[in-house]
Amino acid sequence: MNGVEALQAYLDGAIPLVRAMQVEVREAGAERVVLAAPLAPNVNHQSTAFGGSVAGLATLACWGWLWTRVQGECADTQLVVARSEIDYLKPVTTDMTAMCAAPAAADEAVFLKTFARRGKARVELTATVLDAAGEVCARFTGTFVAIKN
Amino acid sequence: MNGVEALQAYLDGAIPLVRAMQVEVREAGAERVVLAAPLAPNVNHQSTAFGGSVAGLATLACWGWLWTRVQGECADTQLVVARSEIDYLKPVTTDMTAMCAAPAAADEAVFLKTFARRGKARVELTATVLDAAGEVCARFTGTFVAIKN
Repeated sequence: MNGVEALQAYLDGAIPLVRAMQVEVREAGAERVVLAAPLAPNVNHQSTAFGGSVAGLATLACWGWLWTRVQGECADTQLVVARSEIDYLKPVTTDMTAMCAAPAAADEAVFLKTFARRGKARVELTATVLDAAGEVCARFTGTFVAIKN
Repeated sequence: MNGVEALQAYLDGAIPLVRAMQVEVREAGAERVVLAAPLAPNVNHQSTAFGGSVAGLATLACWGWLWTRVQGECADTQLVVARSEIDYLKPVTTDMTAMCAAPAAADEAVFLKTFARRGKARVELTATVLDAAGEVCARFTGTFVAIKN
């Protein structure tokens, strides 16, 4: 199973809302994770994407990056979101993707070193949500914590 | 139809994810809106509530308060979330509720006056997400915009 299949199987199996949102893993590597979701199951009262779906997809993209990055090191790890913020820049009127890129190399190195040493570390991750035309519709920042069980 | 039934019917009809999350409107008045959701459809990989569901429920509680407060004044109004932030204080291990209380009276008055005068106004709303024991598990703050069509 490659990274995309592994993350898809994990999310589908663990989080019922992932299936309700019809989230599809497009990329899952150490450099970035890209998730897609169609508009129809995520639509709101104005025929644009529901804010909860937009924020949820961005949260999952960041969480997915962390899972992809850390699971090889230690399968028995809790990965949780501690806080997040999101700016909704324009309505999503099409299918959407959320992209989380790896943090700056120095930040990633500190995170991995701290995690290896203390069994617990936090990292700030960002994601952008794009519409089908590639326009940035939302910017998300979250603080995620990895804890070795 | 009372306020609870009206908001429930509106949310159920407009947002498929509301049904997937099994959101139930418990209170819907000018003073506050309370929404409930069971754990099972909102669960994550750790048998606690998925962050996207927690944030989504809080977003809906605030949005529902605004809808309840403004729809009487003007049915033909767009209500959108512009930005939000959420602190996840502790995992939700039970069914959950999200409660949005009316903002301070002075802030509410400014919002309603601006909306009446300009046909567009923004307001900051907060919600708390509680577990079945009444413990605060998350605090949410969002900026919402009402726009007369």
